[in-house]
Amino acid sequence: MQSKKIYYSYEEFREDLKELTQKIDQSFDALIPISRGGLSMGQMLGEFYNLREVYAINTIGYDDTQKLDEVRVFNVPNLQEAKKVLIVDDIVDSGDTLVEVLKVLKKEYPEVIFLTASIFYKSTAIIEPTWWVKKPQGWIEFFWSEDLK
Amino acid sequence: MQSKKIYYSYEEFREDLKELTQKIDQSFDALIPISRGGLSMGQMLGEFYNLREVYAINTIGYDDTQKLDEVRVFNVPNLQEAKKVLIVDDIVDSGDTLVEVLKVLKKEYPEVIFLTASIFYKSTAIIEPTWWVKKPQGWIEFFWSEDLK
Repeated sequence: MQSKKIYYSYEEFREDLKELTQKIDQSFDALIPISRGGLSMGQMLGEFYNLREVYAINTIGYDDTQKLDEVRVFNVPNLQEAKKVLIVDDIVDSGDTLVEVLKVLKKEYPEVIFLTASIFYKSTAIIEPTWWVKKPQGWIEFFWSEDLK
Repeated sequence: MQSKKIYYSYEEFREDLKELTQKIDQSFDALIPISRGGLSMGQMLGEFYNLREVYAINTIGYDDTQKLDEVRVFNVPNLQEAKKVLIVDDIVDSGDTLVEVLKVLKKEYPEVIFLTASIFYKSTAIIEPTWWVKKPQGWIEFFWSEDLK
């Protein structure tokens, strides 16, 4: 069954980000957007919270023969001066990416507290972000992938 | 003399990014947005060029007593598999940030070719990006810093 395609505009994103900031009830001293999905969020939230500490992290999903959907995490930022960090992504779908990012970051920085936030969250994901805004009602076509076409 | 404040909307950004992609006449295998300013650009250009290799880099500007406007560059991404890389930022103002980012990256990766692109470029900057779209006519208030207020 093909999932319904839903265009997600910048205006909607802006309103959802506002809602997200109303939900976020803890402070943090760095933001980690997962690249690419979380980059625009990271920039806007960094501006909103007046945080220059916006450090991206990268992931690649592999289709390994041994284990499907394996995720490799790289370009782990330096968090030596951070105590509480908010990881952001556009959508938590299977949750594999977020789980792997958390695993790598917690191993490298066991003293840091990690919080997570996304715009979209699917209930079938293996992890629920600390804060999220809405559940997707189909296949989301984000403005950042559509608007330059 | 106070510079005129000019709101820069998402719609304008989208049109300027389209223009930028028309100017960019070389290929590249990774994108480096300078955080925070280049993050949204990095995400949209990554989608446009179908490049998952979008790696942010961080800078901090210092007001040192010895040397004004010193820039420290950190979270340098791993570019071992890259040959040609496009560095992006929203605005090249004094040019100090871009010059310092280039210096650090070229030192670490002498074999990589670095190209640069920005939306705004001031003629008084100490470096001209390979590609840019327009000159600022005042103090730009970017949508990413205004729209969540």
